[in-house]
Amino acid sequence: MRADMNIEEQLAYLKRGVVDLIREEDLRRKLERSRQTRRPLRVKLGADPTAPDLHLGHTVVLRKLRHFQELGHTVIFLIGDFTGMIGDPTGRSVTRPPLSREEIQANAETYKQQVFKILDPERTVVEFNSRWLGALRSEEWIRLTAKVTVAQILERDDFQKRLREGSPISLHELLYPVAQAYDSVVLQADVELGGTDQKFNLLLGRDLQREFGQEPQVVMTVPLLVGTDGVQKMSKSYGNYIGIMDPPEEIYGKVMSISDELMWTYYELLTDVPAEELARWRAEAEAGRVNPRDLKAQLARRLVAEFHSEEAARRAEEEFNRVFRERGRPSEIPVFHLSASVGDRVELARVLVQAGLAPSMREARRLIEQGGVQVEGERITDPRAQIPVKPEFVLQVGKRRFVRVRSRETPNPMPT
Amino acid sequence: MRADMNIEEQLAYLKRGVVDLIREEDLRRKLERSRQTRRPLRVKLGADPTAPDLHLGHTVVLRKLRHFQELGHTVIFLIGDFTGMIGDPTGRSVTRPPLSREEIQANAETYKQQVFKILDPERTVVEFNSRWLGALRSEEWIRLTAKVTVAQILERDDFQKRLREGSPISLHELLYPVAQAYDSVVLQADVELGGTDQKFNLLLGRDLQREFGQEPQVVMTVPLLVGTDGVQKMSKSYGNYIGIMDPPEEIYGKVMSISDELMWTYYELLTDVPAEELARWRAEAEAGRVNPRDLKAQLARRLVAEFHSEEAARRAEEEFNRVFRERGRPSEIPVFHLSASVGDRVELARVLVQAGLAPSMREARRLIEQGGVQVEGERITDPRAQIPVKPEFVLQVGKRRFVRVRSRETPNPMPT
Repeated sequence: MRADMNIEEQLAYLKRGVVDLIREEDLRRKLERSRQTRRPLRVKLGADPTAPDLHLGHTVVLRKLRHFQELGHTVIFLIGDFTGMIGDPTGRSVTRPPLSREEIQANAETYKQQVFKILDPERTVVEFNSRWLGALRSEEWIRLTAKVTVAQILERDDFQKRLREGSPISLHELLYPVAQAYDSVVLQADVELGGTDQKFNLLLGRDLQREFGQEPQVVMTVPLLVGTDGVQKMSKSYGNYIGIMDPPEEIYGKVMSISDELMWTYYELLTDVPAEELARWRAEAEAGRVNPRDLKAQLARRLVAEFHSEEAARRAEEEFNRVFRERGRPSEIPVFHLSASVGDRVELARVLVQAGLAPSMREARRLIEQGGVQVEGERITDPRAQIPVKPEFVLQVGKRRFVRVRSRETPNPMPT
Repeated sequence: MRADMNIEEQLAYLKRGVVDLIREEDLRRKLERSRQTRRPLRVKLGADPTAPDLHLGHTVVLRKLRHFQELGHTVIFLIGDFTGMIGDPTGRSVTRPPLSREEIQANAETYKQQVFKILDPERTVVEFNSRWLGALRSEEWIRLTAKVTVAQILERDDFQKRLREGSPISLHELLYPVAQAYDSVVLQADVELGGTDQKFNLLLGRDLQREFGQEPQVVMTVPLLVGTDGVQKMSKSYGNYIGIMDPPEEIYGKVMSISDELMWTYYELLTDVPAEELARWRAEAEAGRVNPRDLKAQLARRLVAEFHSEEAARRAEEEFNRVFRERGRPSEIPVFHLSASVGDRVELARVLVQAGLAPSMREARRLIEQGGVQVEGERITDPRAQIPVKPEFVLQVGKRRFVRVRSRETPNPMPT
């Protein structure tokens, strides 16, 4: 709790890492009034209803919500199940069948389990927008849509792009931003948070609240986190993500793989290290007085500790150091039993496929050719290499994937 | 009934005076199937829910509906009360307050009274679209609007114009065409009729029926009737209309006032005189063997007879001839009692206003100045003319408005 901060300190705390703040004077006024009236602000975040699997990218906004909670405010975690229960109404996508009430409920539980690693459950209200959107009557839809203009909706970047390209926009897609804005009206949101890509939708909520005679919500956007590759935004589909449910070693190892530059961004958006301290660290590192690798290890420990525990962080670090700095091998390597007898020769690519280290022969050979495969620490680069079968040997693919291969000691018996 | 016609004759009969027919082969197939299955076609006309006051312009499409009825088909007269019950949802117009259920019902009765001067009530179903549109649930609205694209709706001429001009279009305005198209789905319309300005909406009905797996309706548009001025489309607001509830003399007189050219259009769109016969008449008139005035008189009689009776038509003609050809006065002139004594002088403009022949002094003087006012058959053109008060005299404004003015015979008594 940081209830001791004055309003200017609160503002500075809340503004950290934020891209858009519309408008700061509105937020100041709301914070002041909240302090005077002892009525917490209602801070909204809308979440997609599809099965959640949160990664660090999602935590940027969740951390910002937690900052509000630390100042005593209430977070409304809104699950947008209205659309989820409809599914893809165009019927064109096989990937979005409508979710049943049970599935939505199950997803919501998974969500809560994850977001409460960051949010304070005591100061969080979980809502579902099907409660009011599903119940809107025809004439209410007409009245609602009468309050926004077509131009207002179509100015959204992605609609503009599709209009220019001549790719079709279904009319119902224009209803969603309005529905989402109406959520803010129903929830009487004081503040709404989202990624920068949500700015338009959040602003529409502001407009619509005004139409309904409410004080408009403050709009706050946070940056989209860049993934571990340092290029694309973090996303499961780019494979550059760190999931908050990932095992400690995985989180630790992935953080250690990012560039020094990206480390500073992660520190800013994923930790509460004060800005001044970060600046000092950076100066030290640039002057060569601090090894960035140590700062990265500290970041990795912090993140593992946040999603698991201090103890898990310590163990993950030890393991990492053992494997990657001492070039040793992980202490727990999965074992694969090879159907071949000691003394046989087998094609390396086939062993990789059988051991689950490559999805296909083609891919296995590509991995070998690129120098990504080692047998007992020795790199093999001939894609068609045959290797002698030993009672036990260790296969390594890339930096972190190991398999211990065991084979039968005796030759094959003759068929009977 | 014209059930003796073969399909090609039916098609020719239905096509007369029609602008768009989309598509003729669909209509032929529907007519053939209807004949085989003895299942009448469902022919839809949507009507505005505002207080109705039908004029000849409206009868063009009603006559076309009657042609379908004569061939045994069913007309669905659909009153679009869904929008009427909402009123103007933008709240910006004072002219469109929401109508109550009672007002809508009352308007509907007035409608029926008028349309059944043309339609056969036995083959007409009156429907109200609030029945299904009002009951649509949120997710049905989403599913419905998912079936059309924004581009599809915005291609409508008036939307295009407003987009070009940058004048705002409210989002709910995009829902109305979809709702109207959905009416055709619910009603399983085989054919929909409308004015040429409705073509877009009718075609959307066709698209939407296809989306719902129905056979698309045939779209048929009829021209907008030109008003008695021969220039603008007939409309109450242009003052160039002939109302079907107008008194016989009014209908007769207004028809006699139209141009010869317009007369042919009216014959085509407002009567069943066969096309070949019309062509013959026209040739005769152009050769000088027939006086177009006689043909116009015949048209006037036909229309009065249609909306009143043969007897009323005969009387209206006699009256018209007496007044306008013999320059006589109508036999029944309203009487106005002037508050002035015989021998006084009064300003003519003031008498016109008091007698209700002009709305204001300004307008009265304009009428006089333009030579539109006669006193006892004598034209007065001085806008400030004073006239001597006689026990009785006749005022005439324009060609057809007469008032008999009576004054007190005795001078004013002295005030007591």
